[in-house]
Amino acid sequence: MIKFEEFKDVCQQSIEMIEAAGLLLTPEDKKKITAADFGLNHIKKEGVQILTMFQTDRIAGKILVLLPNQTEPEHWHPTVGNDPGKEEVIRAISGELYFYIPGENNMTQGFIVDGKEDCYTMRNEVVLNPGDQLVLPAGTKHWFQAGKKGAVMYSFSTTVTDLMDQFTDQNIVRDTIIEQEPSNSTY
Amino acid sequence: MIKFEEFKDVCQQSIEMIEAAGLLLTPEDKKKITAADFGLNHIKKEGVQILTMFQTDRIAGKILVLLPNQTEPEHWHPTVGNDPGKEEVIRAISGELYFYIPGENNMTQGFIVDGKEDCYTMRNEVVLNPGDQLVLPAGTKHWFQAGKKGAVMYSFSTTVTDLMDQFTDQNIVRDTIIEQEPSNSTY
Repeated sequence: MIKFEEFKDVCQQSIEMIEAAGLLLTPEDKKKITAADFGLNHIKKEGVQILTMFQTDRIAGKILVLLPNQTEPEHWHPTVGNDPGKEEVIRAISGELYFYIPGENNMTQGFIVDGKEDCYTMRNEVVLNPGDQLVLPAGTKHWFQAGKKGAVMYSFSTTVTDLMDQFTDQNIVRDTIIEQEPSNSTY
Repeated sequence: MIKFEEFKDVCQQSIEMIEAAGLLLTPEDKKKITAADFGLNHIKKEGVQILTMFQTDRIAGKILVLLPNQTEPEHWHPTVGNDPGKEEVIRAISGELYFYIPGENNMTQGFIVDGKEDCYTMRNEVVLNPGDQLVLPAGTKHWFQAGKKGAVMYSFSTTVTDLMDQFTDQNIVRDTIIEQEPSNSTY
């Protein structure tokens, strides 16, 4: 659950970060931005802002924004029916971005969300500077975090519904419920 | 066939146009830029510059550049084996960009390359301003052209080899042959 004012605030901050990174957004793009709190009720700690540029039956392109020190919870994209699972390519645009994937523990930049060691099990850190890319094959467990400047990145992927994502944190609810959303909201 | 000096020149111009559009390129990105003359031997008239950001077995992301008034020849992405054919999403970044797809003739901005009416049969014009997007389902015949400022765009797609593309112009050879390329070229 997230209050509408907070939802609006994190979306607006994210739009400003995208534009500060030099990307051009149309008015239609800006209306499409949304935020996910994963049902954990503290979006600025665990959450992500998502602007879907396009999504067809086959491919999707999104801009993801992490606010300073915001963390996207650990998850993976499983096989769904005949689909081998969502493959995702991340391209960092601006800010400080740390990805955590399978491999040896080499964490030096990021941090584990307080008291949630069991929900963040991947500890192989990949630092993505602006322009750097990371391919996440289907099924790869991953989480990511911004440094103190926040981070803007592209996510390009095959299309499957994000509602099929699997999370390490069993308290997660993928659908974001917005409290007190005015009926005339453009968000 | 294209002379190495001309190849280097169109690639360098394209890198400058991409950077002028505000996109950040890494040194590795810049090395990956290439140009296609489609075997027609006049790249500044018919041709395109391509910077492949990523290409996996499933998805690809490229930056395409058209120089002022440069035209990419009409083509389509056919079904290949079990693949239904390459689906492509274009997102305009900067400049003046005109796409031609199936539909009624409503051309007002672009032009048909001199004497090549038979090679440019699609005449339904879609003007893409920066931030505008166009989805090209598999099999859609299309060609595109820049106005006098040139154009920079993203192309996101499913992956199939471009060497399978079909062209209306039967003189086209998809492989670009570069004359006098020094062995130490980074292009």
